[in-house]
Amino acid sequence: MTKVKDIGEQGLLEKLQRFCPSEIVGDDAAVLVTTPEQSLVVTTDMLIDGVHFSNATTSPEDAGWRAAAANLSDLAAMGATPIGITVGLGLPGEVSVSWVERLYQGMTECLQQYNTPIVGGDLVRSPIITLAITAFGQVDPNLIIRRSAAVVGNAIVVTGIHGASRAGLELLLHPELAQNLNDEEKTALIHAHQRPQPRLDILPILWQSLQYPIAIAGMDSSDGLADAVIQICRASGVGAILEREQIPLPAAFDHWLTPEQALKYALYGGEDFELVLCLPQEPADRLVQQLGHGAAIIGKITPGTTAILHDQQKKFPDQVLHLSQGFQHFGQ
Amino acid sequence: MTKVKDIGEQGLLEKLQRFCPSEIVGDDAAVLVTTPEQSLVVTTDMLIDGVHFSNATTSPEDAGWRAAAANLSDLAAMGATPIGITVGLGLPGEVSVSWVERLYQGMTECLQQYNTPIVGGDLVRSPIITLAITAFGQVDPNLIIRRSAAVVGNAIVVTGIHGASRAGLELLLHPELAQNLNDEEKTALIHAHQRPQPRLDILPILWQSLQYPIAIAGMDSSDGLADAVIQICRASGVGAILEREQIPLPAAFDHWLTPEQALKYALYGGEDFELVLCLPQEPADRLVQQLGHGAAIIGKITPGTTAILHDQQKKFPDQVLHLSQGFQHFGQ
Repeated sequence: MTKVKDIGEQGLLEKLQRFCPSEIVGDDAAVLVTTPEQSLVVTTDMLIDGVHFSNATTSPEDAGWRAAAANLSDLAAMGATPIGITVGLGLPGEVSVSWVERLYQGMTECLQQYNTPIVGGDLVRSPIITLAITAFGQVDPNLIIRRSAAVVGNAIVVTGIHGASRAGLELLLHPELAQNLNDEEKTALIHAHQRPQPRLDILPILWQSLQYPIAIAGMDSSDGLADAVIQICRASGVGAILEREQIPLPAAFDHWLTPEQALKYALYGGEDFELVLCLPQEPADRLVQQLGHGAAIIGKITPGTTAILHDQQKKFPDQVLHLSQGFQHFGQ
Repeated sequence: MTKVKDIGEQGLLEKLQRFCPSEIVGDDAAVLVTTPEQSLVVTTDMLIDGVHFSNATTSPEDAGWRAAAANLSDLAAMGATPIGITVGLGLPGEVSVSWVERLYQGMTECLQQYNTPIVGGDLVRSPIITLAITAFGQVDPNLIIRRSAAVVGNAIVVTGIHGASRAGLELLLHPELAQNLNDEEKTALIHAHQRPQPRLDILPILWQSLQYPIAIAGMDSSDGLADAVIQICRASGVGAILEREQIPLPAAFDHWLTPEQALKYALYGGEDFELVLCLPQEPADRLVQQLGHGAAIIGKITPGTTAILHDQQKKFPDQVLHLSQGFQHFGQ
């Protein structure tokens, strides 16, 4: 009898695909058209103690913040504005009440920035702490951001910097790594890991830069920048070329990491929750100009099917990007 | 340090109330007004293996059906028509793939009756099977059913029969109880437990019976008929009187159970997923007439704060209804 661990998350997803309508699968969130003016966007995440968070590196406030931020980021990745979340919480009886209150405190701190209420939930007894969040948002149907909408010639825009979250996690796990960092740099990297910001602030600036509605491709970089570029390429049937020097990194990386290590964190580290957007050159230029140092054009969409990392200075050979180890194996 | 098990579900809910906007807490589901014509209604449930379902009495198909039905029933209890659900699933690696497929099969069988798609989900590794369902629906804001809308003089209408689900569970746990039942009766009671129907079919008939929009109070009877009446009374600041003889019971109860046992299953058994509605006498009469044997007026809303069970034949003294043991204690 085939077990879940034998086929892994990806194998199981393929088996379960037949139970879901195909047209609403494949993005960060599902889109349900409810009225001609507004589509409802829905996304859900389940987080398990010891698998997705741990008291070793994460306070309950930070676990709550990160869970809320991840779901809001999935909405931002679709171009949607949040309207509420529900929270399902499974708890062993031994958990302290203050732990639970601190978890909610962290969630609320993140949500309040975007006026997003917790609109419902369920509290149940469980042998392991389990957090299930579903977030709802709405978007003008003409402005939905989809992975599948990239076309050859699009500029690839990334918001923020990449690699900071992973570097912060490493500093939490191995404090001795911090010896070449000053306090400010160290704090900033750890903060990037503990309190990531969903980039909902980008959406109004993006819409303004478009001038008229066009199809925008994109997703968030929660599973890594390389993963996002590859997923967009696969969904759109295109390739991409990224310019190594254009990828915005934390300033501290210059004197702290080798170029190889810095690039690895940026491309494969994950959990930066930035947006990766593909759009025509002119609106891309306007968007980056508006955002100043808050965004960069890092490459463009090409014919073909591979995503390539290129070094204009030719110090490094071209690399083909690969997926992160994002999929779970359901092993013990 | 206070632990979750020390204060229970109700105590923890009270502590967490401050993180949720008060105006959207207290019904079977939360209401988010999105446009003047349509409100979005959202409900969420978390189910844990060994706590909320068990392979001993429930096949994976039935567990899936029941989970979907419970969430759709919460939407029906608000007057809302479903538009989709999301499914979060935590799985140990040792679970068989076919178990998971059968769970989805059961969910889908229930959902397809109401053209409700599974629009998204999350699959994660967990030491215990955990199912988190969020269902969303829409409703005309004038037709939202709320617990708090009952007024003195309202007739109390229940759909269907009560006690069948609990009787079916007892028959699954103790097959020897079935000796005074014929096969048809036994099958019907077990089916009521394994395949409960959310009463979405009632909504269009209810709307028709109103003639013009009025505030309807109500909820579903998932935690028992007595619990539903008490929750409505508390939320509305009223009392109720129920006529013992008017409560529709499964026909088999007549020759199988004592009147006391039959009434206990009907009032406190739970999981019948019928609707308990409070509305003025005239539309209540029209609704019951439309539904024929599918509904009954079982009592009325009174001044005061208690819900009383009355026997017109005076064979039994008046009883004050009490809450079921629905709240969890988070003990081991």
